[in-house]
This record gives sequence, structure tokens and C-alpha cells, in this order.
Amino acid sequence: MVKQTENSPEYLSSLEFSVRDYECDLQGVVNNANYQHYLEHARHEFLLSKGISFSRLHDEGTDLIITRVEIDYKYPLRSRDRFIIRTAVRREGYIRLVFIQDIFRLPDEKLIVRANITSAATRDGKPSRPDEILRMLNLQK
Amino acid sequence: MVKQTENSPEYLSSLEFSVRDYECDLQGVVNNANYQHYLEHARHEFLLSKGISFSRLHDEGTDLIITRVEIDYKYPLRSRDRFIIRTAVRREGYIRLVFIQDIFRLPDEKLIVRANITSAATRDGKPSRPDEILRMLNLQK
Amino acid sequence: MVKQTENSPEYLSSLEFSVRDYECDLQGVVNNANYQHYLEHARHEFLLSKGISFSRLHDEGTDLIITRVEIDYKYPLRSRDRFIIRTAVRREGYIRLVFIQDIFRLPDEKLIVRANITSAATRDGKPSRPDEILRMLNLQK
Amino acid sequence: MVKQTENSPEYLSSLEFSVRDYECDLQGVVNNANYQHYLEHARHEFLLSKGISFSRLHDEGTDLIITRVEIDYKYPLRSRDRFIIRTAVRREGYIRLVFIQDIFRLPDEKLIVRANITSAATRDGKPSRPDEILRMLNLQK
Repeated sequence: MVKQTENSPEYLSSLEFSVRDYECDLQGVVNNANYQHYLEHARHEFLLSKGISFSRLHDEGTDLIITRVEIDYKYPLRSRDRFIIRTAVRREGYIRLVFIQDIFRLPDEKLIVRANITSAATRDGKPSRPDEILRMLNLQK
Repeated sequence: MVKQTENSPEYLSSLEFSVRDYECDLQGVVNNANYQHYLEHARHEFLLSKGISFSRLHDEGTDLIITRVEIDYKYPLRSRDRFIIRTAVRREGYIRLVFIQDIFRLPDEKLIVRANITSAATRDGKPSRPDEILRMLNLQK
Repeated sequence: MVKQTENSPEYLSSLEFSVRDYECDLQGVVNNANYQHYLEHARHEFLLSKGISFSRLHDEGTDLIITRVEIDYKYPLRSRDRFIIRTAVRREGYIRLVFIQDIFRLPDEKLIVRANITSAATRDGKPSRPDEILRMLNLQK
Repeated sequence: MVKQTENSPEYLSSLEFSVRDYECDLQGVVNNANYQHYLEHARHEFLLSKGISFSRLHDEGTDLIITRVEIDYKYPLRSRDRFIIRTAVRREGYIRLVFIQDIFRLPDEKLIVRANITSAATRDGKPSRPDEILRMLNLQK
């Protein structure tokens, strides 16, 4: 299971969504893969809110690639459910950033998904310390 | 990282795919979420090859739901790449089945993804030992 | 081309979206199929706003199925673009409803897509006049 | 309705698929947008079989963009259905190619979808006659 401390992580951002019918599958619930889409969108919005643009970084030779995904599915979302994704981030070693992302249904705040998404920075395709990203996230130390 | 024994798991099935353009994203590689779609399709094909039909089970009140996904992304697939998914399965406790699924690019057999997908059986919505599934997979022990 | 009168159709609803990165493809623009997803979501929201629930109708034996799609792609959307879908509807014959749906980029209102989506009502699988839907849309004539 | 001559078009290629569970929606049938994905994949495979690579053309400044889609949905596909897409192409004016694409269920050859997909060539973003493509498709005249 995704490791959890006693307390909730210190979320840095949150983003609201609602389930669209086409995201549900035969069982009437959101298809498991679509949660990764939601999480990706929430991460990108979070990073942009910190001034970090994937396309600009990419043009400069730096990429933040996903190396590992751990997702615990606690309870399914159904068509039209509203939900919120809360995102935290921590540094791991020299080149990794781990995003802790939790999905809660609204308005009852039921926990739907816990996810740890590990990313690594590369520069011109090689592992690289993402100094600029760390600075913009205030994670240099 | 997805735990690995010294040796490869004992794969029980394999399924070939090739990447379609619409599965790739802005970076020119398969979007991370789409690997979950590939893995799901390979699992369903594997289970069907053992005579296990989701829709029939569902009609009888039994569901096999995904409770946890761990995916290590080793190397990206690009448009038109051919690849193979090899699937193994083991029992965990009374109600869980863990699918070990590895994706290899063809023809060079480069490891692309390692995944452990944990599922749990429910009957009428409650955790339940999936006796019929275990028997069909020869995992009763 | 999608037929147009001199004037804009009388839109009955509008819904705002923004493009998510995973909806874009190798060319850096929204994949053509995803516009159909957007349009479907806007139609379903419009119908719900009129009290018309697909799932309730379905449980009662009535379905509104898409029989024809005409989409003119005028200009592409790119990642993070905001846009609005405006929807109108007219009756065609006894069993058909045609949705006129136009997508405009925001804030410049550039026309992106014009679509005519034809649907037909079925009852227990057979063509049927959707009296209840027509009444709720005020289209009984 | 998609215009049809008395006879079938002269198909130049065919490609087999089978429906994957994740392509189906709440109603248990393939979501309408996914047919566009199938059709796109079949077109790209057809063009590649003629030596026409989108990525190479793109690198050379030429794009073949979709300007219009007409799809008649005749009958739905369900999970695991096998089907074949047959593709023909004709020239329209100086810069347009129209792909006629029909989907038939297998093995009974039931007609599922008729589609006319119109594309236009651009060079450095401006409409342009796609001489190389026309030659490779033997449509110069």
C-alpha cells in the first residue's frame, strides 16, 4: 500500500473535476487508467501554478519523466461524481521528485485513490538534477 | 520498485500489440495511462483463455476489482513500436490475485514496463474468496 | 460542410472546458476523436439541465442513440486552450433530434469546430418517438 | 447520410481489429468517439503501406490535416467483437483527399459504420497541393 504517515501530507494544491460519462466503462465506474489521466492533469496544473512549464523545459532540454506509479484504488467514482485531487511533493535523492496525490469525492470527502507518482529529471536524455525545478518548488535543500 | 525474484516469473500467457498513433502524446511517446489500458486488455484476454468471463461472473454477482497498481516505467514506447505483454498470476491471502505483467518491445525484447496489479474478488459488493476463479487458474492449493 | 443558416443557431446551453495535455497527440493538437468526447459531454450536461437523464431513460427502456455525426474542423485546439461548446437542438421527423454544437476558443471566440450530431430514440431497441424527451425540450410542435 | 454509389467503393486496404473492453462505455457498446480512433489507425496504416509517413512528411513541412468527418453509425460493436475496416481514397479538387472507410463486423460482415473523412494538405501551415502524396497514391491525374 502507498505509505502513509500518521497525518495527511502537506498538500500544496488542489483541483476539482467531475466525471464525464465517456470516462466510465462497462461496469459503470471510471476506468482505472483514467485516474492516471486525472492525476497527470492535476500535476501539470500544479507545476504550472509554480511557473514550471513542461513545454518550455522540454525546449531547453530538460524533461521530468514518470518512472514509477503506485496507486491504491479505495473506492470507485461513478458518472457525474465530483471530486478533488490534492497534491503534495517531496524530493527523493538527487534527481527524483515524488508526487503524493489523493483523490477525494465531493462533497463527502470520501477517499477514492491514494497515489505516489515518482518522476526523474533528465537533461538531453540523461539523469540530471533538476535545479531550476527544485528552486521553483522550494525544495533545494 | 516492483519486487522481482532472481528469475523471471512463470508467465502463463503473452499477447502482442503495436502502438497506435493516437496513444502517443505531445512528447511523442505512449502516454503513461495507456499502459494501463494495454495491461487490462492483456489480463482480460488471459482470463478469457482460462474460461473466465468478466461479464458472466458479473451477472452471477462476482467481480474482480483492481485495488492496487504498481508500474515501473523503464523505457518509453514510440509510435508503431511492436511489443508483447507477458502475464503471470499468484494468489495473495484469501481474496487477492496479483498479476505480474511485463511489457517487452519487439523484436529486441527490451524491458519497457514491469507491473504488479492487485485484484480482489467481491460477491454482491463484499470481499469474497473467488473459488471458481482460483480453480480455473489452478491456484486452489 | 455542416449547413449553416445566415445566423447562428439559437443556442440553448453552453459549457466551458480547457484542453488537458493527455488529450493532445503527436502533432501537439487535440486529437480529432477527443472533440467527440467533448461534444458528448456537453450534450449530456445540456440534457441533464433539462431534467433528461440517460441512465433513468435507459432503465425505462428508452435510449437516444447517435446515428450520424458531421464535424467540420476549422482550426485546432492546443494544450491548455480554453474553449466553450454551445449547443442547440432541433427535431427532425418523428424520431430524430439533431444537436447543433459549435466549439469556440476563449477568449477570442475563434470558431474551432461546427458539428451536427443526429440521434434517434429507440424503445426496447426499436425506433420510437421520444415523447417525454420532446416535451422536456419543448419540441413537441 | 454518407453518399454511396450503387456499388461499394474500390477498397485499397483492409485492417482487422477486435474491440477491447476499455473502449466500451456505460451502455456496453463501443463509445462513438473510439470509432474515430479506429478509422485514424486504419488510415495511417494504409498510408504507410503506400510509403507515406506522417512523421517524415511533417519533418519536411507537409501535413495532411482532417477538415471534415462524416460518420453514419449503423449498428453498434460490443466488447470482443472482431471487425475489419476497409479504406478507399479519392481526390477532391486540388488539395483534398477523401477517405471512404467502412467498418464491417466479423465474421458476418454486418455493416457497422460508413465514414467519409476529408483531409487537406498544408505546407508550412498553408493549403498546398500534396504532389508527393498524390503520386504515391497514384491519384495525380
